[in-house]
Amino acid sequence: MKLIRFGQEGQEKAGIQNAQGDYLDCSSFGEDWNETFFTNNGLERLTVWLDANESKLPKIPEGARLGSPVARPSKIICIGLNYLKHAEESGMAVPEVPIVFMKATSSLCGPFDPIYIPKNSKQTDWEVELAVVIGKRAKYVSKENALDYVAGYALHNDVSERDFQLRHGGQWVKGKSADHYAPLGPVLVTKDEVADPHNLRLWLKLNDQILQDSNTSDLIFDIPYIIEHLSQYMTLLPGDVISTGTPSGVGMGLKPEPRYLQPGDVVELGIDGLGVSKQVAMNDPEA
Amino acid sequence: MKLIRFGQEGQEKAGIQNAQGDYLDCSSFGEDWNETFFTNNGLERLTVWLDANESKLPKIPEGARLGSPVARPSKIICIGLNYLKHAEESGMAVPEVPIVFMKATSSLCGPFDPIYIPKNSKQTDWEVELAVVIGKRAKYVSKENALDYVAGYALHNDVSERDFQLRHGGQWVKGKSADHYAPLGPVLVTKDEVADPHNLRLWLKLNDQILQDSNTSDLIFDIPYIIEHLSQYMTLLPGDVISTGTPSGVGMGLKPEPRYLQPGDVVELGIDGLGVSKQVAMNDPEA
Repeated sequence: MKLIRFGQEGQEKAGIQNAQGDYLDCSSFGEDWNETFFTNNGLERLTVWLDANESKLPKIPEGARLGSPVARPSKIICIGLNYLKHAEESGMAVPEVPIVFMKATSSLCGPFDPIYIPKNSKQTDWEVELAVVIGKRAKYVSKENALDYVAGYALHNDVSERDFQLRHGGQWVKGKSADHYAPLGPVLVTKDEVADPHNLRLWLKLNDQILQDSNTSDLIFDIPYIIEHLSQYMTLLPGDVISTGTPSGVGMGLKPEPRYLQPGDVVELGIDGLGVSKQVAMNDPEA
Repeated sequence: MKLIRFGQEGQEKAGIQNAQGDYLDCSSFGEDWNETFFTNNGLERLTVWLDANESKLPKIPEGARLGSPVARPSKIICIGLNYLKHAEESGMAVPEVPIVFMKATSSLCGPFDPIYIPKNSKQTDWEVELAVVIGKRAKYVSKENALDYVAGYALHNDVSERDFQLRHGGQWVKGKSADHYAPLGPVLVTKDEVADPHNLRLWLKLNDQILQDSNTSDLIFDIPYIIEHLSQYMTLLPGDVISTGTPSGVGMGLKPEPRYLQPGDVVELGIDGLGVSKQVAMNDPEA
């Protein structure tokens, strides 16, 4: 299945993308794609319900906004420097264990929403990443059965303010958490539809120029290991989002000069089988 | 007002502590003390409702467990090294700007719940802290009116695993996020009942020996500045918890040897006007 959410920001309704690529309104199912849904075997129940009801579902209105395909989770956890060349371009050591940081969940937005350049930002940067969505409570999980705890996968732009992240007094969360810094989706693809999450091309273009182009086969720490590692330190809850790190080609690492997002810049990104998203940068209207 | 929550973990009901110190069941108000409550002027509505109904409210059952006085928030944000002597005992530089890190919100628990020593932990440590609970959405707030965004204050034990925090590959969140690492309460005291949040004694005892004893007047960065600072980087949502840092006397800093929690150790802590909490350390039953 491919889950979507659509409608105004903060008032999204649940939907799916069907096999023909159409977006269908599932609000008659009566649930949002959130922690409660995943906790209560929502994916299994939805599968059964769709067998009986999919043909009757309305298409979503033309031009409707897509939201994040999952509702605001309890956590967005990110893995830092998880591709070799990205660690090198960042001028940082290749990690021996996963570097873990959080994004404020208030940064979550839809896949075609604008990226807001926050007040006083001069270094808003892009990061295409494979995000994993947790399907059931995971604590002290071993890598051998870690994938049992996965609901599915989604495309994520882990937007990052490099000055805030690296030069504002420690701990990366400061540069990762602004509103609209986490465009997720368009879809959450359930794991049964992803043959191998460690063999997916991921790419990102800035104004039609390809800047990131890699494959999840290059992950330093793979998904089972990440889940094992994280679940030793904290309990992963259904609906939680884990973003697995970005490959080389971010603005900070460009030669001869770093490059950061300016109003009007267009960022487009994709991962095999998980769709494409697109964001236009603009100054935060609340700034 | 003093808000409480009571009942089984994960199924807490809303209540208050009245002027006589009794705990009263407010479940007939029909709301939990969560983001939605604070967003929709819950404190004002509750005040009005209590004027009419307080005398009819049942006392909570004898021996009932207290939960966190606020429901799981969107974020628990912590300020690091915000007392001079604690920075010194930690062997770290006094920060020029607030150090900001997150605790996973899944670490939240009640004020008398056990502290779980997680699997493979040898350095579970204590930190008495003044926590601020946000009352309304705060973004790009200036310190001059930052206190307008505060709902109230609570006692927090920012339990910390020093090895996980400092020697497991970067970013403190790894050592701050285990289950039961954030005992909050007993009460959320609304700000009208706290004459000066910057003049509150805070203390912590381990097995009846006083180890932390300071005053919020010693905060390096005060509450208005912290809110101004954080709200430049991320949007603070109603119900969010900001923990303002711990004074000296944590286990990591003890001389001649550091000391960490062992099963059976009893931690008791308090802040003027915000009550007292008490936790017994035990090995995580899921470990």
